Amino acid sequence: MISLEAIGVIHTPYSTNAPYQPVHNDTGEFYIELDERYEEGLKELLRFKYIYVIFYIDKLQEKPKMRFTPPWLANKELGLFATRTPCRPNPIGLSIVKLINVIDNRLYVSGLDVFDSTPLLDIKPYIKELDDKSDANYGWLNDLDNREHFMLHIKGIPHDY
Amino acid sequence: MISLEAIGVIHTPYSTNAPYQPVHNDTGEFYIELDERYEEGLKELLRFKYIYVIFYIDKLQEKPKMRFTPPWLANKELGLFATRTPCRPNPIGLSIVKLINVIDNRLYVSGLDVFDSTPLLDIKPYIKELDDKSDANYGWLNDLDNREHFMLHIKGIPHDY
Repeated sequence: MISLEAIGVIHTPYSTNAPYQPVHNDTGEFYIELDERYEEGLKELLRFKYIYVIFYIDKLQEKPKMRFTPPWLANKELGLFATRTPCRPNPIGLSIVKLINVIDNRLYVSGLDVFDSTPLLDIKPYIKELDDKSDANYGWLNDLDNREHFMLHIKGIPHDY
Repeated sequence: MISLEAIGVIHTPYSTNAPYQPVHNDTGEFYIELDERYEEGLKELLRFKYIYVIFYIDKLQEKPKMRFTPPWLANKELGLFATRTPCRPNPIGLSIVKLINVIDNRLYVSGLDVFDSTPLLDIKPYIKELDDKSDANYGWLNDLDNREHFMLHIKGIPHDY
């Protein structure tokens, strides 16, 4: 058994529904309230454009299933680890967001795909060259007839078609 | 308090020294042994070129310091969260590696910056468009006179100068 503790709380406008992935320009306020005892650890963080936010997905009811077929993907069975489902053996969430401002122990960020009051576990800088793999691929998403349309969904970009 | 459990073990050639960041073409065998009960969850993962490996940094002795000056960066004081130091309030590690093969419950990967026998917490696919932020920046690394040289160090690329 591994014990961790929340080092802060994430605030979002989502109380009953949250998007699958961060919606960068969603309306409402998104901020992270770091415990005051860690405020000193934020020095120089604002120099970074993007940060990783690591959180504990605490509002899950379901037990993880090793395989499932997503509703939008008939006939395709996926292993849990090949997806970003929140329902995982260790419900650790990982989101990349834009860091807009840091005021005292508050970090104002772009849209975050979590429910209000989600416990924060860690913050790390997203570093150019280290984290942006330009030769990454789409994995099984390439099998989708309408991958581009689907990406709008998982990126949470509103669209009319 | 948040309780998690190891879902596997990471094997690397590093028993006394490990690099700061993944060294993609380091020699030796790097593989993740997922608990057999989760093997079914790997279906379709090999379609992805890169994966995130999330692990518990279990071999730390030091207590986290909110601010420190790295040895290679005289006069620069950095907040802990503006760095990727393993010594954090929640010692959660995050590495992006190439997925080379999946055989049963074993994942063969490119160089991973962890000690042998490190507990695995989660695996997620690294998805193009979602995770590769081409407009990311270098943050405070830009203040370095020799940033390019320094990047070779943090990326663990051997060099002669």
